[in-house]
Amino acid sequence: MLTPRDDLYPSRFGKQTQYLPRQDPVIHGDAQQRALTGLSAEQLASFDNDGFVILHSVFNNDEVLALRAESDRLRQDPAMRSSKEVIREPHDGAVRSVFRPHTLSDLVANTVGDKRLKDIAQGLLNDEVYIHQSRLNYKPGFRGTEFYWHSDFETWHVEDGMPRMRAVSMSITLTDNHANNGSLLLIPGSHQTYVTCTGETPENHFEKSLRKQEYGVPSDEALSRLIQEGGIVRAECAPGSVIVFDCNTVHGSNSNITPDARANIFVVYNAMTNAVIDPFCTQPPRPEHVCTREDIVAI
Amino acid sequence: MLTPRDDLYPSRFGKQTQYLPRQDPVIHGDAQQRALTGLSAEQLASFDNDGFVILHSVFNNDEVLALRAESDRLRQDPAMRSSKEVIREPHDGAVRSVFRPHTLSDLVANTVGDKRLKDIAQGLLNDEVYIHQSRLNYKPGFRGTEFYWHSDFETWHVEDGMPRMRAVSMSITLTDNHANNGSLLLIPGSHQTYVTCTGETPENHFEKSLRKQEYGVPSDEALSRLIQEGGIVRAECAPGSVIVFDCNTVHGSNSNITPDARANIFVVYNAMTNAVIDPFCTQPPRPEHVCTREDIVAI
Repeated sequence: MLTPRDDLYPSRFGKQTQYLPRQDPVIHGDAQQRALTGLSAEQLASFDNDGFVILHSVFNNDEVLALRAESDRLRQDPAMRSSKEVIREPHDGAVRSVFRPHTLSDLVANTVGDKRLKDIAQGLLNDEVYIHQSRLNYKPGFRGTEFYWHSDFETWHVEDGMPRMRAVSMSITLTDNHANNGSLLLIPGSHQTYVTCTGETPENHFEKSLRKQEYGVPSDEALSRLIQEGGIVRAECAPGSVIVFDCNTVHGSNSNITPDARANIFVVYNAMTNAVIDPFCTQPPRPEHVCTREDIVAI
Repeated sequence: MLTPRDDLYPSRFGKQTQYLPRQDPVIHGDAQQRALTGLSAEQLASFDNDGFVILHSVFNNDEVLALRAESDRLRQDPAMRSSKEVIREPHDGAVRSVFRPHTLSDLVANTVGDKRLKDIAQGLLNDEVYIHQSRLNYKPGFRGTEFYWHSDFETWHVEDGMPRMRAVSMSITLTDNHANNGSLLLIPGSHQTYVTCTGETPENHFEKSLRKQEYGVPSDEALSRLIQEGGIVRAECAPGSVIVFDCNTVHGSNSNITPDARANIFVVYNAMTNAVIDPFCTQPPRPEHVCTREDIVAI
């Protein structure tokens, strides 16, 4: 059940999907703020209209190689094996994600705090920003599992208590994202609608949802509607690219049976004025490594 | 363990992958036979070199609609529900395949016996042909599971006793096969090498393997090598196309989270002189609906 306080983006109740219009701008900054992002008018328009923009060749080859080595080191670190910050594949236990890498590695901290990325986040959100979540993602070759469609904001709002749509995600690609290795799929325009999900949030949902999401996913009907309207764009790009996407853009990925693994650093910048409050569900807040709550500091 | 008789294509033993050269031609027919296929020199060369060729617009829209309706009818037929000829998705029980549809439907029988397809099979194999296997495949939207890389011949040889590489498969597409809905992936040139698989065939393997194959799949090393040499081609094509591929061409498909289901009629033509004998493993032969053994009649 919902808490009695006002909820602009209610979800996880009832049996019917609702399509609520977005209550927040996509780009919060004015012309001056937009200029500070360093993005072209075309890139800004793409982000505004589609809910994402792919920036190619942001990091050079040396930077990518260093980040990939650091990512491998963190994934393989024996000290991390039993850490709650490590998420494994359901079927074989391989490490799929390492949370909060920016607190574990100076190199990752410097990368997610890179001025180019920070300028984009601040300019789009028109505020100082902090890191709501960061993770290293690794989708292995041959046996990389799919990740089903979802809006991150739906989860962040309901389970974390992120009040408004004023956060932006960036995926820094460390490997090639090509046609067949399970590259990110995005639904252009999906960020303009808040699609409510049915079913209450179960206890300790986050532990399962980070492996395989079953709640907080849009219905078949909703996905059909969003895809009929916007289509699907596959984010094909070389290592060193940055996929910038709005917190409410619906995305997912197919499985990967090719030999080519995929790895990226995923980081979510949230506006300081949009810091999380109590979750919009009856479950306790998710832990700090999934959602920054204690350590809200502008980068 | 292997039977003592000569086995040109041994597999499922030992711990090391072996790469055995193909012992049979890809196109068995001479120039005159090739001409009878109705395929162009370019298409024949593609089949010979790559191990497959995609024929577009073989069946027209009306034919496709009729076949799709017939396919839906067979999949939904309550009488088929508990039939052994029906294979279901592991996670939700949805019908994924119906075997031997050509014995259940005149329309399907006429389609797999269509002169255009029969001419291709006879011309490529230089022999009269019979149907080794047929099935309706259905990969649903949203929750379509992947199918891992494999050579059909490896299974047909070991588990069915198909002596030589003298069979050709055709996938008649009933839906759009596009970039993101789990279209067939093929490895060009993989048909020229017989990649042995490790591990013995377990009892009643076929019941599981039709849902999720665990034995008779090439090693990571073998797949990396084949894909490094040949790459991956995704068989993107409209409904009514026919993907013609050699029995030893390694193929697979990723999962499908898009709303667009995929359906096809899959049929395997085997040369009459290449009819199955005893399996090349210690397990009993697979049942008739998976491998024609009793009812070997030229079409």
